[in-house]
Amino acid sequence: MNIEGGLKMEFERYFQVWDKLTREKQEEISGAAFARNVKKGTVLHGRGEDCTGLILVESGQLRAFILSDEGREVTIYRLFEMDICLLSAPCMIQSLQFEVTVEAEKDAKIWVIPSGIYKDLMEESAVVANYTNQIMASRFSEVMWLMEQIMWKSFDKRLAGFLLEETSLEGEPCIRITHEKIANHMGTAREVVTRMLRYFQNEGLVKLSRGAIEVTDEEGLEKLCM
Amino acid sequence: MNIEGGLKMEFERYFQVWDKLTREKQEEISGAAFARNVKKGTVLHGRGEDCTGLILVESGQLRAFILSDEGREVTIYRLFEMDICLLSAPCMIQSLQFEVTVEAEKDAKIWVIPSGIYKDLMEESAVVANYTNQIMASRFSEVMWLMEQIMWKSFDKRLAGFLLEETSLEGEPCIRITHEKIANHMGTAREVVTRMLRYFQNEGLVKLSRGAIEVTDEEGLEKLCM
Repeated sequence: MNIEGGLKMEFERYFQVWDKLTREKQEEISGAAFARNVKKGTVLHGRGEDCTGLILVESGQLRAFILSDEGREVTIYRLFEMDICLLSAPCMIQSLQFEVTVEAEKDAKIWVIPSGIYKDLMEESAVVANYTNQIMASRFSEVMWLMEQIMWKSFDKRLAGFLLEETSLEGEPCIRITHEKIANHMGTAREVVTRMLRYFQNEGLVKLSRGAIEVTDEEGLEKLCM
Repeated sequence: MNIEGGLKMEFERYFQVWDKLTREKQEEISGAAFARNVKKGTVLHGRGEDCTGLILVESGQLRAFILSDEGREVTIYRLFEMDICLLSAPCMIQSLQFEVTVEAEKDAKIWVIPSGIYKDLMEESAVVANYTNQIMASRFSEVMWLMEQIMWKSFDKRLAGFLLEETSLEGEPCIRITHEKIANHMGTAREVVTRMLRYFQNEGLVKLSRGAIEVTDEEGLEKLCM
């Protein structure tokens, strides 16, 4: 279904460079984009499918992962409200030569911009091309971070162990401690702790709030420590 | 040193979108770029250095790697003649939030385009922005490939084992076999074999020529199998 009158407003929110497009381009893109409501577990882009298009998340949660020949999965990033998935439109960028699967991890409402439309836009507009660059750089950074974690596994294990120890000490799943304090405790930088805790939160292992960390999946943390 | 008259020709070769720039932009960029001859082992971009600029390789060989806190290195890609390094200019792209070290693996002649100049160019020109996109996508793909190798180590080990077995069978380090045949032998696609063999070649383990593979570092392959 096409975007109805008034719904263009949505795009203004999701598509950060909207205001920098000409009226003509705005009409072209909003005429071609369409909305989908998808159930948890729906595969939105995957092996065999060539080029689904750019996916904008209005609500819900998506997961992008790679798949080994033996069917093992590794999550490379998650997409939340307002996020944009570029890797579901690999045909747009010739040198993008790897495949990810994108699935709805929770019920979601998404917008799809067809690859051809976006590609033309990107080729004509420096603003859109640079915006695309930013999105790609941000995913690239997430993957690099994940790779470093995988290579030098120590920190996630250490942090998981630390959280388990603290909850056990407190006798309850909620730890009242700042990221700064944990960083000092573990001989690392606050940023490193914050990033890893956010990763844990995305994985459903903890829930973060101001000044406190709630362990929501003790078993998951224990598994990580092994 | 600035590019001398006549040397602009070089840029035409290295900078693939040169012809699509205005005369004014061409002059701006060739006025700002400078050449460096660097000895093997020179660190061109690394921790602490903020933004070295875009590096174009005229000759020689560079290596980009990440470094753990404990000083462990992992090569993420190599750069050969005509290649361009984007990750040595991270300040150009706000969302690029990881650090690589770039060093000369062999004596090299490089050109450096200052980040500020390139950034302006990229912001103004859709052609340059899309070109940058292509370079980033290509590095991103290399990293994804490497990550898959690391996660699901089986194939490099299997291929190394296969090559060792074949040389042992032949009684000499040179195997006369097509990539297609190896692929059939190993139940995979020719592209997968070719890519891994190229990776082996970059690592100095084998030397590829038409219809033949020469094992140049038997010990290295054996180590890979372990």
